[in-house]
Amino acid sequence: MVQFQALDRTFSALSDATRRDILERLGRGPASISELARPSGMSLTGLKKHVKTLEAAGLVTTEKVGRTRTCRLAPGHLDDAMQWIAVHRRRWQRRLDGLAAYVEQTRGGTG
Amino acid sequence: MVQFQALDRTFSALSDATRRDILERLGRGPASISELARPSGMSLTGLKKHVKTLEAAGLVTTEKVGRTRTCRLAPGHLDDAMQWIAVHRRRWQRRLDGLAAYVEQTRGGTG
Repeated sequence: MVQFQALDRTFSALSDATRRDILERLGRGPASISELARPSGMSLTGLKKHVKTLEAAGLVTTEKVGRTRTCRLAPGHLDDAMQWIAVHRRRWQRRLDGLAAYVEQTRGGTG
Repeated sequence: MVQFQALDRTFSALSDATRRDILERLGRGPASISELARPSGMSLTGLKKHVKTLEAAGLVTTEKVGRTRTCRLAPGHLDDAMQWIAVHRRRWQRRLDGLAAYVEQTRGGTG
């Protein structure tokens, strides 16, 4: 159940283009809030809200030194989301493969 | 931009445990709305709403024959979400690898 809530937060955090842009930017290295705000022209307040959502979802960590808050990708930040999708797709693929084998067998039997 | 909106809908659809359960159930084969509702004890109205969200996100297709609406996974239903995460992770991994190589080189230079 805890795992489910965590996945809720992760996928919900990923459901916004601005937040995905922030993750892509942080993929190139740590950045301050104002560095993150610059390309989009978004207000610092608006951007901080998005960073908080990413932080609550365990995708980003932040650290305040002096007046600057530096944001970084959290280690293994997308592992759970990736795993859920991968497991689900693998199971589905196996089912499709099973279906294909069955069709092939049936075709062979009647052809 | 269209692509971004599609990803918004996909990740948003995945951010709910009931909807992820529906996808997992449909991964084992098509099912009617009432078959989907049974395990959770959810109302048909509540379940239909979740199915509509999954349909709008392009994850599920439905077909009504007579009085029964049958739900299926849409082909390639998680490809875009998977691709976004995979590309993002790959870039991030490359950056980590570059960093590791740099540390290694620096260590070699001073050691």
